[in-house]
Amino acid sequence: MSTTSTPNSLTTWKDGAAKSQILDFVARVTQQGGPDFFPPAERIAVFDNDGTLWCEQPLFVQVFFLIDRVKELAGKDPTLKDRQPFKALLELDLTTLMGQGEQAILELVFATHSGMRQEEFEPIARNWLAKARHPKFGRLFRECTYRPQFELLNFLRRNGFKTYIVTGGGIDFVRACSEEIYDIPREQVIGSSQKLRFEANEGRGGLMKLPELNTFDDREVKPQNIALHIGRRPILAFGNSDGDLAMLRYTKTGQGSRLALLLHHDDAEREVAYDREFRLSPLNEALEKAGDYGITVISMKRDWNVIF
Amino acid sequence: MSTTSTPNSLTTWKDGAAKSQILDFVARVTQQGGPDFFPPAERIAVFDNDGTLWCEQPLFVQVFFLIDRVKELAGKDPTLKDRQPFKALLELDLTTLMGQGEQAILELVFATHSGMRQEEFEPIARNWLAKARHPKFGRLFRECTYRPQFELLNFLRRNGFKTYIVTGGGIDFVRACSEEIYDIPREQVIGSSQKLRFEANEGRGGLMKLPELNTFDDREVKPQNIALHIGRRPILAFGNSDGDLAMLRYTKTGQGSRLALLLHHDDAEREVAYDREFRLSPLNEALEKAGDYGITVISMKRDWNVIF
Repeated sequence: MSTTSTPNSLTTWKDGAAKSQILDFVARVTQQGGPDFFPPAERIAVFDNDGTLWCEQPLFVQVFFLIDRVKELAGKDPTLKDRQPFKALLELDLTTLMGQGEQAILELVFATHSGMRQEEFEPIARNWLAKARHPKFGRLFRECTYRPQFELLNFLRRNGFKTYIVTGGGIDFVRACSEEIYDIPREQVIGSSQKLRFEANEGRGGLMKLPELNTFDDREVKPQNIALHIGRRPILAFGNSDGDLAMLRYTKTGQGSRLALLLHHDDAEREVAYDREFRLSPLNEALEKAGDYGITVISMKRDWNVIF
Repeated sequence: MSTTSTPNSLTTWKDGAAKSQILDFVARVTQQGGPDFFPPAERIAVFDNDGTLWCEQPLFVQVFFLIDRVKELAGKDPTLKDRQPFKALLELDLTTLMGQGEQAILELVFATHSGMRQEEFEPIARNWLAKARHPKFGRLFRECTYRPQFELLNFLRRNGFKTYIVTGGGIDFVRACSEEIYDIPREQVIGSSQKLRFEANEGRGGLMKLPELNTFDDREVKPQNIALHIGRRPILAFGNSDGDLAMLRYTKTGQGSRLALLLHHDDAEREVAYDREFRLSPLNEALEKAGDYGITVISMKRDWNVIF
């Protein structure tokens, strides 16, 4: 990561109000002696992942991973094909699946993400990410990241910010790729997690991933986990759904100058246009209240020169 | 923090087997192309705080803070003086206090550490730390840190390590001083924590510290929290009690070259000599099994030129 202090001009962002607001904010908080100055230690920027840094449609990347993992398990144990919730997932019958409730989703997650050492999970996720492709765009999922966001992350880091991912996705899954994809070290990834159990026997010590939820990092839990992991209120937050609203408000209501950004997927031509109707992660209240809460809405169509 | 790559020679450490082992370990894991090399991203070093980085006798620093906070509360509500567990604490009757069990201790912690915004707690802790003094040594508690450890932290950082505190103490309490005292940013502090609740009203958003335990960062919980916060197994760990044994074993049983260090307080003249009899945090099993587990015991008396 370059440490030059020359900010570039966010070439993948179109000129306009949104880009100006970002450039102006960064100029103000980094101007030593200025009224809005924050020292580097306080320049914390948090980004949601699904739908903010990479594509979340038609399903979260990790759901595709989960489907492939269940297929693998069903190869070893064919009875899964006739058992819910596995049956609904394998048939991609999401209506039936969602109708089975949260416990069914957790059962799928635990069946595919637990019963192994934490360090054994990582290569499974990495190998999948190395070759799995997006069904519509044809490119690797790991290449379905938004170029303007990548440029923004770099721009912020060049200006002394520490960039974090705060995701509803699994912390171990995102950590398996955050360094390579976003240049974000795994200790700067906050996410949903399972409980772990330390086991030491025969001189081997390690952490078992248990079939038990530790934290579902969504909505009000996002600021709570930010406080737990970072211990400092961010000065910039970027999200794209109601699940990010608490994090955006936590950021925006801190003292001094703060920037809260909300990505609106309104570009059917280059990506997908959606908001409130996306059942997995709707954008509804955050869009409606953005004005009241001082949140800046970013339009993919209007504000970005490129998508991927 | 200096970024020069010239390692110094740990002048506050006496020449001997322990110092040689540390210098040799750091030389090996930083030698590019060598068999024990770890890239900087994997050079994670974790340190316990109480009794490892600063003095924990006759009581943890945070217990003195808690006593002063209870005195303050008792000034406003004199009935506390007759109510347990406050009465026992104010009378420094630790036998009665410990006899009341874990719930009584938690009641004291919650009475003094909750019911406020997280950001309101910080100045309370900072102001106390700015003036509270150790009863025996007469110096500020914040100056009861061990100079050889401070030199070791700096030495590790100069060699590309990222240094973390992993403490049984309160995460917000230690974060209030970690940057100033140890040059460790608060996001590199892992500790015991209370649950938080996000509240947003009237345009103000913040996190309330709740009277509910989130995690007691001791024993097996230490490696679990290391995995949650860092997502990577440390290559060096330093502790001083049985509460650190799981963290030391988690570190030591990773693949490749690893160093686990255990501080033995055996210097009655310059500090305090104790191990298994310290009820708050005994050193017993870790000392007994150190040889079996490949843990290096550091003697304050034999291995350190200075203490504070």
